[in-house]
Amino acid sequence: MRISTLSIGSELICGEVIDTNAGHIAELLLGCGLRVQRHVVVGDCEPDIGEALNELALKSDAVIVTGGLGPTVDDVTALAAAHATGRRLVVNEELNEHLRSFSARLGGPGGCHPSDKQAMIPAKSTVIPNPTGTACGFHFIHGGCFFFFLPGVPSEMDRMLRETVLPFLYVRVFHKRVVLSSFLNVFGLSEPEVDGLLACVLSGSHTVQMSICVTFPRIRITLRADADTETAARTRLQETVELVRERLGDAIFSEGHETIEQAVAGLFARRGLTMALAESCTGGLIAKRLTDVPGSSAFFLEGAVTYSNAAKMRLLGVPQDILEARGAVSSECAAAMAAGARVAAGSDLGLAVTGIAGPDGGTDDKPVGTVFISLAAPDGAWTKRFLFGGNREDIRTLTAWTALDWLRRYLMNNSLFSV
Amino acid sequence: MRISTLSIGSELICGEVIDTNAGHIAELLLGCGLRVQRHVVVGDCEPDIGEALNELALKSDAVIVTGGLGPTVDDVTALAAAHATGRRLVVNEELNEHLRSFSARLGGPGGCHPSDKQAMIPAKSTVIPNPTGTACGFHFIHGGCFFFFLPGVPSEMDRMLRETVLPFLYVRVFHKRVVLSSFLNVFGLSEPEVDGLLACVLSGSHTVQMSICVTFPRIRITLRADADTETAARTRLQETVELVRERLGDAIFSEGHETIEQAVAGLFARRGLTMALAESCTGGLIAKRLTDVPGSSAFFLEGAVTYSNAAKMRLLGVPQDILEARGAVSSECAAAMAAGARVAAGSDLGLAVTGIAGPDGGTDDKPVGTVFISLAAPDGAWTKRFLFGGNREDIRTLTAWTALDWLRRYLMNNSLFSV
Repeated sequence: MRISTLSIGSELICGEVIDTNAGHIAELLLGCGLRVQRHVVVGDCEPDIGEALNELALKSDAVIVTGGLGPTVDDVTALAAAHATGRRLVVNEELNEHLRSFSARLGGPGGCHPSDKQAMIPAKSTVIPNPTGTACGFHFIHGGCFFFFLPGVPSEMDRMLRETVLPFLYVRVFHKRVVLSSFLNVFGLSEPEVDGLLACVLSGSHTVQMSICVTFPRIRITLRADADTETAARTRLQETVELVRERLGDAIFSEGHETIEQAVAGLFARRGLTMALAESCTGGLIAKRLTDVPGSSAFFLEGAVTYSNAAKMRLLGVPQDILEARGAVSSECAAAMAAGARVAAGSDLGLAVTGIAGPDGGTDDKPVGTVFISLAAPDGAWTKRFLFGGNREDIRTLTAWTALDWLRRYLMNNSLFSV
Repeated sequence: MRISTLSIGSELICGEVIDTNAGHIAELLLGCGLRVQRHVVVGDCEPDIGEALNELALKSDAVIVTGGLGPTVDDVTALAAAHATGRRLVVNEELNEHLRSFSARLGGPGGCHPSDKQAMIPAKSTVIPNPTGTACGFHFIHGGCFFFFLPGVPSEMDRMLRETVLPFLYVRVFHKRVVLSSFLNVFGLSEPEVDGLLACVLSGSHTVQMSICVTFPRIRITLRADADTETAARTRLQETVELVRERLGDAIFSEGHETIEQAVAGLFARRGLTMALAESCTGGLIAKRLTDVPGSSAFFLEGAVTYSNAAKMRLLGVPQDILEARGAVSSECAAAMAAGARVAAGSDLGLAVTGIAGPDGGTDDKPVGTVFISLAAPDGAWTKRFLFGGNREDIRTLTAWTALDWLRRYLMNNSLFSV
């Protein structure tokens, strides 16, 4: 089945807003075994929309259109769809009712009035209900192609896609073949290293596809198994996942959409341990990422962002000697920060980073990108010097990822790899 | 001039990676007065690429293609371009030389070998140099349409676009009409409020276009002036910018691409003041954002992420009475945190936030989204209760934005609006 997406919006075509709907639709469809062949984006311009619809009708069995269904004058998708397919725009009673009840709910008497425009859809269309917004969608068949029109608001679009479009496609046009996917997330290996380690895994397999994608600084491995039945697809997929796990070991930090901070939070919960944090060059980034996870207050007791030497001494007890003799960016300072954070907070673990994120502040001895990470635990302490490349943001990102990965490895193994 | 973009990549079509190149190209071209009419995305699949190239040739005067120029087997853009336009793939000597020198630079003797594949481009093409990577681009004319092929790596693509493609288009095919843009960034007003305030600004103007775009939680106003000469366009644009500034006042926090944290950092530098930070529910997010700005160590002395009551007492001197009688999420606690951070660090300003980001922890009195923000300054102190909506991430984002906006307003006016 050939499927295309069409995203409509002047803010998308001129690059003010990045279109995330097309990718999201493709990902959801892929989960159901349906591949999208083409994404198209056009502005809120009737002739451009009409032309795209007609072209896509020729090459697709289904087209999923998003955007341009709002109440304002620049929303012309319904009109363009009607013109392009030789239909009239008609008032739909179901939509009228929806708009009235929605308007009553939001505004009460005297509140906002429904826009008649949003009740008008091309003749011979079926409404796609929108439980959370005023802009309903609609679908029809034209030139042998299924057209689905959804609003551009991602949360509304997502719900309507899951609740109406996917079940519709599943029942009406789903071919029996099943595609299942797994994602493995890797940190600490380069792309060529991953490539090399996995080269042998897929030789001989024609039913599992693998793609390796770098999303700085992690690597994502996607495995897709294709079979006549769900059981067969699941078995093949699981076999390959295990082979990949064998080859890459604990460089895999999570499966699916789990982030590294979620993986770390899960390990803290399992181990029943607590931590405190001392950050210099990352300036709160590591704390921010750990506390992105709901429930992080159970293990994350406190963090200190100590840019100044005074703060390092007062909050973390870093001895003045070390700051004078070795500097704030030094192995000794990092170790004192980690130990100090741990003692001050009374936590099980203390993690510290100090470094030079740039663009200024580098020296011959300690160029921009020089970072020290230190972890203090009841059963040992580890400190290591790194030299990270890239700009300020890259250096901060790599520092945070590496520090989070240290937590993960310690919580898994009660030790770090040899650092 | 009709311009289209074509982004090529299986990771793009299946939604694993969101394509940012098309939007970036559109934004850059718009800065030169060239509008993109359509974006298309296809996978690394030769027939799909060829079909898209031929269709776009019919409806465009120029097509900018990105992706699929790498060394691996799944990179088939050059081959597809050759087949689709009836050309042979030929070895290009300039490219061979580039690859040899690049490989020597990276790998030295015995290092990686150049891939012959990357030296092959369609016959009768001109090379587009890539100063920072192995994948050069190429361009040719086919069916009266200019085709430009660039690699998909955003930084390499950006540089090649600016250094070769834009000057080429400018000289060869640029029509005289000039389009200039300005961006104004707004926080603290809703979209209908902005709409209402600006309704009168553009009545009667046909030469300046305005679009209002919500990128949660800020609003971006784009103004575009269109004229025969740069001077005329600049004058019209500047007049409108001033009208908008008059209407929206200090709700405009920056122009262009300046972030609110950059605006705050600029104001700190101008005023020569310093600050300290105490965060509870934002968990380091505000510190992270302030220290995203290079040079922030000049004004940002330290931050404390105090999740636990023990940390609030020890690091910030919050009295135990307050924590027991009013709770950690209270006006009194926020004020004590801000004052405590200021005194402990010896800074000019102390900023504190405490609240319930959820999903758990809400009560009838203090539901999820309840946040207290407090600012302590030499000449006064302000504390206010907020109730932010949305999920954990939304609440943390809104808290950080509001806190940063308080800093901005204080640094501008030496006072906050009545809070």
